Parts: sequence; C-alpha cells; structure tokens
Amino acid sequence: GPLTGKIAYIDLGQMHAMQDGSGYGPQTRVRGLGPAAAQDKGAVAFLIRSVGSDENRMPHTGTTRYVDGHQTIPSFAVSAPDADQISRLIEWGETVRVHLSSTARTYQTTSQNVVGEITGKTHPEQVIVLGSHMDSWDLGTGAIDDGAGGAITVAAAKAIADSGRRPARTLRVIFYGSEEVSQPTPQTGNGGGVYARGQGAALDKHIIAGESDFGADRVYALRLPAGAQGSDFQKAATRVLYPIGVLASDRVETEGGVDVGPMGPLGVPFFGLAQDGTRYFDLHHTANDTLDKIDPAQLNQNVAAWAGLLWLIADSDVDFRAMKPVTPATP
Amino acid sequence: GPLTGKIAYIDLGQMHAMQDGSGYGPQTRVRGLGPAAAQDKGAVAFLIRSVGSDENRMPHTGTTRYVDGHQTIPSFAVSAPDADQISRLIEWGETVRVHLSSTARTYQTTSQNVVGEITGKTHPEQVIVLGSHMDSWDLGTGAIDDGAGGAITVAAAKAIADSGRRPARTLRVIFYGSEEVSQPTPQTGNGGGVYARGQGAALDKHIIAGESDFGADRVYALRLPAGAQGSDFQKAATRVLYPIGVLASDRVETEGGVDVGPMGPLGVPFFGLAQDGTRYFDLHHTANDTLDKIDPAQLNQNVAAWAGLLWLIADSDVDFRAMKPVTPATP
Repeated sequence: GPLTGKIAYIDLGQMHAMQDGSGYGPQTRVRGLGPAAAQDKGAVAFLIRSVGSDENRMPHTGTTRYVDGHQTIPSFAVSAPDADQISRLIEWGETVRVHLSSTARTYQTTSQNVVGEITGKTHPEQVIVLGSHMDSWDLGTGAIDDGAGGAITVAAAKAIADSGRRPARTLRVIFYGSEEVSQPTPQTGNGGGVYARGQGAALDKHIIAGESDFGADRVYALRLPAGAQGSDFQKAATRVLYPIGVLASDRVETEGGVDVGPMGPLGVPFFGLAQDGTRYFDLHHTANDTLDKIDPAQLNQNVAAWAGLLWLIADSDVDFRAMKPVTPATP
Repeated sequence: GPLTGKIAYIDLGQMHAMQDGSGYGPQTRVRGLGPAAAQDKGAVAFLIRSVGSDENRMPHTGTTRYVDGHQTIPSFAVSAPDADQISRLIEWGETVRVHLSSTARTYQTTSQNVVGEITGKTHPEQVIVLGSHMDSWDLGTGAIDDGAGGAITVAAAKAIADSGRRPARTLRVIFYGSEEVSQPTPQTGNGGGVYARGQGAALDKHIIAGESDFGADRVYALRLPAGAQGSDFQKAATRVLYPIGVLASDRVETEGGVDVGPMGPLGVPFFGLAQDGTRYFDLHHTANDTLDKIDPAQLNQNVAAWAGLLWLIADSDVDFRAMKPVTPATP
C-alpha cells in the first residue's frame, strides 16, 4: 500500500469547543476508524492530533476501534502543540521522523455495577435510574469523567433522602462499571448493557433514566423524551428549574448516554440535564482530569437541578412511555 | 535529624500571578535553599509544589541551589493538582508514600554568546546592548523563555536596519548562552558574566543595556535608571511609547536581568521594558512552553516598543551614567 512501513498521521485541525460538546463526535469517528484504514494502506502505526480543545502539551487519549480480520497497529495521539509542529514540518516539505514508544497493555479484570436506591413509598416497583460510571480513563484521576457524575447523582438522592419525606417512586442510583474500556459489543458489553439485560421484565417498570457524565459545569437545558414536549410535566419542570438557569429544550433526549443507553432499545425513555461542555474537552481523558478542575458552585447547581427534577418525576404519575409526540396541525 | 530517611515536602500554596511577575521570587528562594536545609535535617530527597501559577498537571522545573560541603540530594517539583492531593492526605493524617524516579543527568558542554550589531554611524564605540538568551529549560521548546526575547530584540534591530538610515550609536544584539543552567558563580559564570568580563575597558562606552526575557506578552511600562527619572529623555520616550500602551514608570530599573545583570556592578545602566507577566508563570519551565503560546499581536507590540525606544537612545547623546537622581527639595 501507499503507506507501507510508514506511520499514518492525521491532523484534522483543532477540535472546536461547543457548549453542547458537539465538536467531539466528528473527530472521534476518524480516531476510531483511522487505525484500521491506515493498516489497510500498509501503515505500521497510527498517529492523530489529540481530539481535545486545549492547548496544553498533554495528549488526549480515547477510543480506537479495530475491525475484525485486521491486524491491530499501535495507535497514538499527540498534543495540540506537538501536532502543530509536525504539521508545520510537513507543510514545509520536511521528512518527519517520529519515535514511538508505548507503555500500554491489555489485561483481563472484573468490573461491577454498584447500585443503591431510595425505595418508593407508594410505587416501589416503578424505577427512575440515575446513572454515572465509576471507571475513568487511565491518565487522569477521573474527577471530571466521571467522579463528578457519581457525586451529583448521589448528592441529589441524598438531599431527597435527608428531607424526611419518601418519594412515591423508587430512585435508583447506579454507578456503572466499565464505561471507558469496554464499549458495548455483542461479546462483552459494558456495565450499562449488563444492567439492562439483567433486569428482564422489571425493565418495563423503569419509568425513565438519565445520566450525569459530562463533568461538573452548570446545567443549562432540560431535555425530555419526544412525547413530553409541550406537556404539563415540561411546564412544571420549567417552573422549578428556570430560576437556577435551566431552560426546557425542544431538543429531544433520545440516546441517554453510554451508561443508560442500552435501556433505550428495550423501551426505557430518557431525560437529559445538559451541562455546559465548553471546558470539558480541555480536560477529559487527559492527565489534567483532577479534582481541582471541579467548580463547587457549579457542582451544587447540578445537584439542585437533579434533586428538583427527580422530586417532580418521583412524586408524579407521569407515564413517559405512553406519552405520544404531538403531531403539528396541518395549516 | 528529624527527617532522617524521609522525603522533605514543601507546599507554599499556589504562587499568585502578578502582572510584574513578583509572585515568583519569594517561592523560588525556598526552592533554591530548600534541598540543603532538608539535607541538614537528614532528608533523602526534596519535593516541592511547583513554583508556577497554572493548574495543569505539569511540573515547573527551576533552579535549586546546593551549598558547599553539603551532599546533594535529589530534588523534585510536583504539579499543583498533585501537590493539592499530597497536602490533602497530610492534612487528613495519612502516611503519604511517594515513589521518585528521575531521568536528570549532568554533563559538560559548551555554550556560546552570539553577537551581531548595527555599527553606529557617528559614535560606533558607544554601545547599546539588546539582550536575551538562547538556551531554555529542558521540558519545553523555549518559545516563551527565551525564544521570544531573541525574536523581539532582533526584529527591533532589523526594523531599524531596514529603515535605510543608520543610528548614531551602535546597537548590539546579544543572544547569551547559558542563562538557565549556570547561574553566575565565581567559578563558572553564565554568558552574561563572560561577556561583561571580556569587554574590559570597552564596557566604559556601554551606554545602557536592556534584556527581553519575560515571554512575548505586551509591554506596559518603561523603566529607566534612577538618574533619568523626570528627565527630558523620559518625557520624549513617553510621547513615543504611550500610544502603544507603554507608560513611563517611577520604578527604577536597577537589576537588568540575569543576562545583562553582570554589567551593572561594572557601571552600565539598565533600561527595562516591563511585560505583562500574568500568564508567564503558567508556562515557563514547563512542557507547555511552546510556540503556540505566543500571541503575534502582542509580540509585534513588543517589537514596536523596542524599536521606538532604541531609535531615541541611539540617535541621542544622553549619558545615562552621568545623570544623577534629583534630590527632592526639602519643604
């Protein structure tokens, strides 16, 4: 192939930071599929500009995907300043030589989902899932991804538990295992897939699920299932959340996220409390993902948003599954 | 001693970023003298919170000083987030275990001063020194410390050379060697010391010297020798520099900096074009000291300030040595 014996290098330019994190996806698809494509062309290794929005001299690691029948090749990310330098040299027509050394290894281990709940007073069988994940990428300490999510959901549940009044429905806090290292596959599955498959018929009584997996910066939007758009529930939630800066969004929550996502195809609706992600891709999957990056005031706003919304859902009899999207009247 | 077999750890709290960089000195004195003090108490190694203002997970390296007759002990700096974590554990009463590994080494090498000049048209023997240093700390690429300084001074000189009119006095651009690794000592000396000692009697004709060694962020103040305070020269310089945001400061320039400093005790006065250092200690002596951190607009403002001031000095007959500070009249 045209890359025989060479290192494939991809520089897509710096990822653009967006409030909703939408700059990340397009580049991660290239990162994911790049190694197999490079190997097809004979490359001995794959190198990509970090998919991240910062200018620190730290690489952002992240998922790469290998395709069945392909030999795996070593894959690396370089920091933005180093990518700038490599790309400059290429532009000037220089022959670029890169020495690669990796300490990565694969090994078998076990992960668990950790589950706790406030059992509902009048409808204990009706479950609302509050998700996050326990594992983190190896470079940082996982404060942003996803210690924050666990802290936010458990603090919201604790605020409700401490109130002395039990909610009607069950609030189930799940710290999922294995979000980072094992994306869902038919063979393995992640903690979210294991949970969804393990619930069996009980999943029919899962009212709604949401996860917190985007750091600790403030919540700015509430996203509900398609059927809840324009509903009385959405109006009530807006009255509760607007004073702390959360607007009801007309963007429908369909995916839920990696952890709660596997419940979607099995019929469980999702809510989303969208967080400001402008700063998220400066930090996540890098050595900079540490506790000092958490802003206590914004963390508290997250807890308030979760606690407020959960009280509304848990004490209501809203059936999100049964709500059908309103078809706009033909003019 | 009380630290026998232990690692001495010092956390002075995060360095505060100041526009004039004044947060750096107090902490570097502790970093400099700490290893010998720790060794006196029996410590086997020395560890300090990085003297820097950023929250990245990158250590700031820098000078440590060993005292004659002391055995040297290994000395390390940890990043702010890691120092936070160590200090938290100590506060909680935990026994903190730190594994230290260093790839540092010492070796003999040679450094040079590189000198170029625009020889003055009418007073070639009268020299104005434009200093900076070529070497950089090993972690970064030295864009901020001190590639920027070299770029600013040589660009200012080039602007003058390209004007087609020769200045009356000589402008001498010096890229000093060995600023970072060999602070002045009687035995070795740095490039600045070698230059000053090597000039002999010619140093008497060095009119003034200044250096650019604080990154590339904008110049905000002009500092002159004590005798030039309130002088016509200061007023003329203010008229030229004020429009680009540089104010004449009543702070007197006495030190010059590490590179030009050794000329001071030999009678050469200094000027200073003070740069905004708010961001400097986020970057210097770290792996983040790379070209992308240079703001082209601020770099240009530096060049304009140097070129404007140098024209004034080079075409004048101001004798900064002879100017005596005005004694305020007794009321």
